[in-house]
Amino acid sequence: MTGQGLPVAVVGAGMIDFGELFDVSYDEMVVGAYRRALSSVDKGIDDSQLEAAWLGTCFGEFIRRNVTTGALLADPLRFFPRPVTRVENACCTGSDAIRNAAFAIAAGIYDVVLVVGAEKMRDIPSRQSLVSQTATVFHEWSHPRGTTAPNRFGQFATAHMEKYGTRREDFAEIAVKNHANGKHNPHSHFKFDVSLEQVLNSAPISWPLTLLDACPTTDGAAAVILTHERIAASFTDRPIYLWGTGLATDPMFSGWKSSYTEFPATASAAQQAYSMAGIKPQDIDFAELHDCFTITELITYEDLGFCEKGKAGAWRASGGPYIGGQIACNTSGGLKAKGHPVGATGVAQVVEAWEQLRGEAGARQVENADIGLTHNLGGIGTIVSVNIYGREPRRQGRA
Amino acid sequence: MTGQGLPVAVVGAGMIDFGELFDVSYDEMVVGAYRRALSSVDKGIDDSQLEAAWLGTCFGEFIRRNVTTGALLADPLRFFPRPVTRVENACCTGSDAIRNAAFAIAAGIYDVVLVVGAEKMRDIPSRQSLVSQTATVFHEWSHPRGTTAPNRFGQFATAHMEKYGTRREDFAEIAVKNHANGKHNPHSHFKFDVSLEQVLNSAPISWPLTLLDACPTTDGAAAVILTHERIAASFTDRPIYLWGTGLATDPMFSGWKSSYTEFPATASAAQQAYSMAGIKPQDIDFAELHDCFTITELITYEDLGFCEKGKAGAWRASGGPYIGGQIACNTSGGLKAKGHPVGATGVAQVVEAWEQLRGEAGARQVENADIGLTHNLGGIGTIVSVNIYGREPRRQGRA
Repeated sequence: MTGQGLPVAVVGAGMIDFGELFDVSYDEMVVGAYRRALSSVDKGIDDSQLEAAWLGTCFGEFIRRNVTTGALLADPLRFFPRPVTRVENACCTGSDAIRNAAFAIAAGIYDVVLVVGAEKMRDIPSRQSLVSQTATVFHEWSHPRGTTAPNRFGQFATAHMEKYGTRREDFAEIAVKNHANGKHNPHSHFKFDVSLEQVLNSAPISWPLTLLDACPTTDGAAAVILTHERIAASFTDRPIYLWGTGLATDPMFSGWKSSYTEFPATASAAQQAYSMAGIKPQDIDFAELHDCFTITELITYEDLGFCEKGKAGAWRASGGPYIGGQIACNTSGGLKAKGHPVGATGVAQVVEAWEQLRGEAGARQVENADIGLTHNLGGIGTIVSVNIYGREPRRQGRA
Repeated sequence: MTGQGLPVAVVGAGMIDFGELFDVSYDEMVVGAYRRALSSVDKGIDDSQLEAAWLGTCFGEFIRRNVTTGALLADPLRFFPRPVTRVENACCTGSDAIRNAAFAIAAGIYDVVLVVGAEKMRDIPSRQSLVSQTATVFHEWSHPRGTTAPNRFGQFATAHMEKYGTRREDFAEIAVKNHANGKHNPHSHFKFDVSLEQVLNSAPISWPLTLLDACPTTDGAAAVILTHERIAASFTDRPIYLWGTGLATDPMFSGWKSSYTEFPATASAAQQAYSMAGIKPQDIDFAELHDCFTITELITYEDLGFCEKGKAGAWRASGGPYIGGQIACNTSGGLKAKGHPVGATGVAQVVEAWEQLRGEAGARQVENADIGLTHNLGGIGTIVSVNIYGREPRRQGRA
């Protein structure tokens, strides 16, 4: 399908407000996101029109000790007897659920499907948290015992600083940018500004990263409704379209990594998506990037081809990733301000694409937004997804 | 695609010998199944021809405390940078991975893909076992604390006995049948016969079920290579074809179940698959059924339409599910004798279909095997998958 996009439209997208949702159960999050997606469909939709679903959820078993399966969507939504696939792919979970759902539509199997991403990260004891468990109980031989995400991503920061002269401030400024965007997003976990000084002087978590370089631990859920583009107009006159999708892998085991100054899987996933969409990086108007840490977003500018290799610090300083700049990055606030409920993150990025491409993003609106990209990076660049959405169908006259 | 099948062929299928594989790591299981699938391709295949992969694996996080993701396939196979999706859907994990991979091929995204199912169930302390953890730490509100699978499926046995006069021996005989088949399967965990008396007199686990009504806890992995049917001939002159696929849900919460004498999701998934394939149950020559317990297989005869509702005991007694009978069920030995490494089970069923449809099943061979069905049932009938394979392409002259 090179250069022709996919025959898939988004006709509805919604999310609950992310945050520390101690008073909201997993089931209630799923139902909340689902209802917001349904009510976003301009011409209305009957829930019986949904033929199948994909649930993106990641850490149910690992941190919450439940068994997940598609039942975690089917039960709260009374979705029986329709099919529900559960996809898990680390931080790409939500985006890969969308990718698989889109393939089913493109194959002609279903015309209308639901994708929900959901994650409950917070209401557990600290020793059950993701950071604690990956450091202490994680059984994978390739994962050094005691290592956590701040430690691993900190290595990329120091390597990039050493090789390219990137300054500590270059990525600290990304936190400032994303908080400035996120405070305008009603769904954000954090709705406050942070200053460069605050980022530089917050508690160190793994040098050079400080607490304010890291995304928070957040509860949340998001949902999108996908249709074949042929029937999108029966749901809305302003759908958005999936132009391309890519997914790529890179070693989990540190010793096999080819680089600590780039994430090769990002370049590979992007190449797949660009090729399917028939576009170049410079065609993109805005992008939701996986800023689990500020350094991840900085390196991603380069891996996606938004700027030259090694020049991300300068590109940021020139205004490239700001609203009004060349490619507005993380207008939603990103993981950094909006929050990062892992399975929900990739689906919530589409909610931002939906609002931007329909001109409904309010104070965060990118002018003339025609093409948007979403990016997720799991593990330490172990798995990366890139999806591209457009305001118009990719193939003229195809719809 | 009603009645037209899917344009998807299986050109290779292989599995490692199932069992208590204390001396084989998860990675080694994946590599073993992969190599057997590659070497089963009649005209050979270069591993670089595989464009993408799906990994079906279920309990990595819950019982083994690792985080899974597609990296658990990508790392051992050095599959980088190609995409790997991890699907988890309880006991339907492997079959649903195949379903999603098939959709991607049918959509025209990839021509050649790999599906691996793998599960390490054994080398953990007893208190980390699936049975122990679902009874003690499982967090889902809908799951009664202390309940285990034998208990839940035992309820279906007593209900079926009460409503239809089904006898204890009717399902005990299914264990006898499946062991008799499985002893001829070189990949089986158990390669010995059991007698009716042994089944009836083995240790009760939840009345009326005894230990020999239950499948074992098994380690294992299996792999299949799927292609678009258009190019199948470049890999083999004897591919098998995916004619239909179905997936369906039913409540996890016991109180919402509509019946304890049937699994409604089986009928629903089967209807989807039959419709896509354009066949009736009576067209099927053999079936791999989800005999987690003997009673599950008995009820499944009815749910799939192999016999009338309530008549499964009589159908079994008439020879229906035996090799040489109307629809040979679990010629591989089923979960009962071959074993049930959860994520691998659905993929291993395709290995049996591959051997049967190619006439390579030896002492287990079903004569004139043209159409085979695979069935998985997760939770307590919470999620069910049905896939149908044929010896010929479904649409004449389409390939």
